[in-house]
Amino acid sequence: MTEAGPIFLPKGFKFSSATAGIKASGKPDLALIVADRPTSAAALFTKNLIVAAPIEVGRASLVKSHGHVRAVIVNSGNANCATGPAGIRACKKVCSELAHLLNVKPTEVFPSSTGIIGVNLPVEKISAQLKSLLEKSGTSPDHFRQFASAILTTDTRLKLASMPLRNGKAAVIGVAKGSGMIHPQLATMLVYILTDVIATPAELRRLLRKACAETFNTISIDGDTSTNDTVLLLASGASGVRMRSVQKEFEKALRGVCQSLAEQIVADGEGVQHVIRLRIEQAKNRTEAVQVARTIAHSLLVKTAWAGADPNWGRILAALGRSGVQVNPKRVTIFIGAQKVCSASIACLFDERAAHEELSKAESRVTVQLGRGRARLEFLTTDLTTDYVRINADYST
Amino acid sequence: MTEAGPIFLPKGFKFSSATAGIKASGKPDLALIVADRPTSAAALFTKNLIVAAPIEVGRASLVKSHGHVRAVIVNSGNANCATGPAGIRACKKVCSELAHLLNVKPTEVFPSSTGIIGVNLPVEKISAQLKSLLEKSGTSPDHFRQFASAILTTDTRLKLASMPLRNGKAAVIGVAKGSGMIHPQLATMLVYILTDVIATPAELRRLLRKACAETFNTISIDGDTSTNDTVLLLASGASGVRMRSVQKEFEKALRGVCQSLAEQIVADGEGVQHVIRLRIEQAKNRTEAVQVARTIAHSLLVKTAWAGADPNWGRILAALGRSGVQVNPKRVTIFIGAQKVCSASIACLFDERAAHEELSKAESRVTVQLGRGRARLEFLTTDLTTDYVRINADYST
Repeated sequence: MTEAGPIFLPKGFKFSSATAGIKASGKPDLALIVADRPTSAAALFTKNLIVAAPIEVGRASLVKSHGHVRAVIVNSGNANCATGPAGIRACKKVCSELAHLLNVKPTEVFPSSTGIIGVNLPVEKISAQLKSLLEKSGTSPDHFRQFASAILTTDTRLKLASMPLRNGKAAVIGVAKGSGMIHPQLATMLVYILTDVIATPAELRRLLRKACAETFNTISIDGDTSTNDTVLLLASGASGVRMRSVQKEFEKALRGVCQSLAEQIVADGEGVQHVIRLRIEQAKNRTEAVQVARTIAHSLLVKTAWAGADPNWGRILAALGRSGVQVNPKRVTIFIGAQKVCSASIACLFDERAAHEELSKAESRVTVQLGRGRARLEFLTTDLTTDYVRINADYST
Repeated sequence: MTEAGPIFLPKGFKFSSATAGIKASGKPDLALIVADRPTSAAALFTKNLIVAAPIEVGRASLVKSHGHVRAVIVNSGNANCATGPAGIRACKKVCSELAHLLNVKPTEVFPSSTGIIGVNLPVEKISAQLKSLLEKSGTSPDHFRQFASAILTTDTRLKLASMPLRNGKAAVIGVAKGSGMIHPQLATMLVYILTDVIATPAELRRLLRKACAETFNTISIDGDTSTNDTVLLLASGASGVRMRSVQKEFEKALRGVCQSLAEQIVADGEGVQHVIRLRIEQAKNRTEAVQVARTIAHSLLVKTAWAGADPNWGRILAALGRSGVQVNPKRVTIFIGAQKVCSASIACLFDERAAHEELSKAESRVTVQLGRGRARLEFLTTDLTTDYVRINADYST
């Protein structure tokens, strides 16, 4: 499922990347997906009211093209956000130049940007690379990895996941970027998922919405929702396999790919030392389970306790108490790993050293039982370390 | 108004402190206020659903005593929270032992605790000190400072503010503790305010609620609301000055004392390098101004940018966009100090060095105009530094 494993590439797509000089670091910052023929497409965007130019342009293009995409052009190093009408013009210029080279409509080119907010997009640097991007594009796993690499910003590793369908006759592959500003309200990072199944945009939309709700929407690194978040699903149809004939298997594969990417994003969170699988159990419904999970996952005191592998469950309890969910303290139980540390909101006798060891693991488990119902949720989150602060205290300066 | 200035002590109160050995550090951890006669009292408590034993006991005692308090006993180093029925018994035992020594009703003793959650209160250590606490109590500024010192936990300085009334015939004095878990939903720390004006509990309640809403409820350090927060106002009446004859002046003094304590708490926030005066302007009403202020003040990306004195206003804009308030991006303006950095959600040309210098000051000003109405609010908050993480990553271990 991860980079280390085999890569199952769907047919009908080519990939490439370039260094346009948008990033000061000189790392690759331009990435392209081209489909041999128009693909069916579905997308989810950030719920932030402040959205970047590519979100506005991409959303409108999908409507105009009736959910069909021929190419995806991504730049990293610049979010093209808070750039006003000039930002929209810049984004459209990139799309129409690429469309011209491909001999397709500008609305069939889907744009994405990620990076710093409020700086004008250097269109000329991007334009200068488009032709060679197309010429260099290819279908190999290496080409795909180059795409995956060029969309990264503060990420420290590639994020890929793929699954074969119908014994390899078709496939689903996903690629993601994101390690800060991670708190999905809908989608919360850049994610591109490709398949060669034959599907309509409407089929894709329904399946994508469901998969995201169960995966990307139950992770959080810092509680900040980005202005550029996008999840895009493209189906080339090049396998000849029809969605209807493979739907159950496809749904499972899509969920698996999304879950794997979500876990890779959390594990690569900025400054993250410990990933926490926060289980909320005995909630009345999923909505309140999410509310409790987010309040705990965003508590600075809880996150810093986790950074120190500190089994200070009192902070979890205190965060729960201000979550807005009307818990009865007498029915609340907290576990660290398999150990009960607090029952009826009262301290239990427990092995502190073992709890510390559980929280010292790269991935540990914390369970909060609310005593209100039967809904449960697993929420993936992280500790808050001095490294997170360091990374984010000198990002733009 | 601060510790450095003169201290105006109201008549009718004695103070003392002791080292009971609750804190491992060996610093003073027990503090007492005794009134010569029963005082009128009003209190505000945390809105957290998980509350400590002293909150439950103190709240019930105030009802039973019809708002009269004879003594306040505070321990630091242990929150007596999540300690169940045993915690309630422990708290009541301390109150009744002190009441016995004072020959008053147990419900006339008001308890407070602050410190670690989930550890049983060492009642014997406290009991052993009560007699000498009483014997050592006195009315001098030094006695008052000893009280102020013994209620501290991670605080690095005393927090005092006082104002004379009627040319010194009466006075209002306040003392506070708090530097983490600071995010008032009502009150959010321990605050004791004393006066020698003659007033009824009902008068005090009304005045206290108003003063807190305008001061303690517009500050935030880390967004975590404590389980033990208490603001207590006592009026001894010993000055002979009636509230009715001095109400306007009293209101102003009370607000001044609360505002000064609120500012002292923020300035002493854990690991704080920069205090930010976050002004929300052109809001429709106060409620949405508070909502916007809190979302910005709690954004990890905003707080870490402030730690680096980084004029990265894009993060402020992104936080605003997810605040839940339906802002029109085209009407949003952001200032750092006096400089406009973003207008209509678009970057302005501004002097980055000057903006960096503004944010490098111990206290700097950030203004966000929403373009929706005429309500405004000043919210006091802080940056998030590696020191905050360090302090909180090894609190209990």
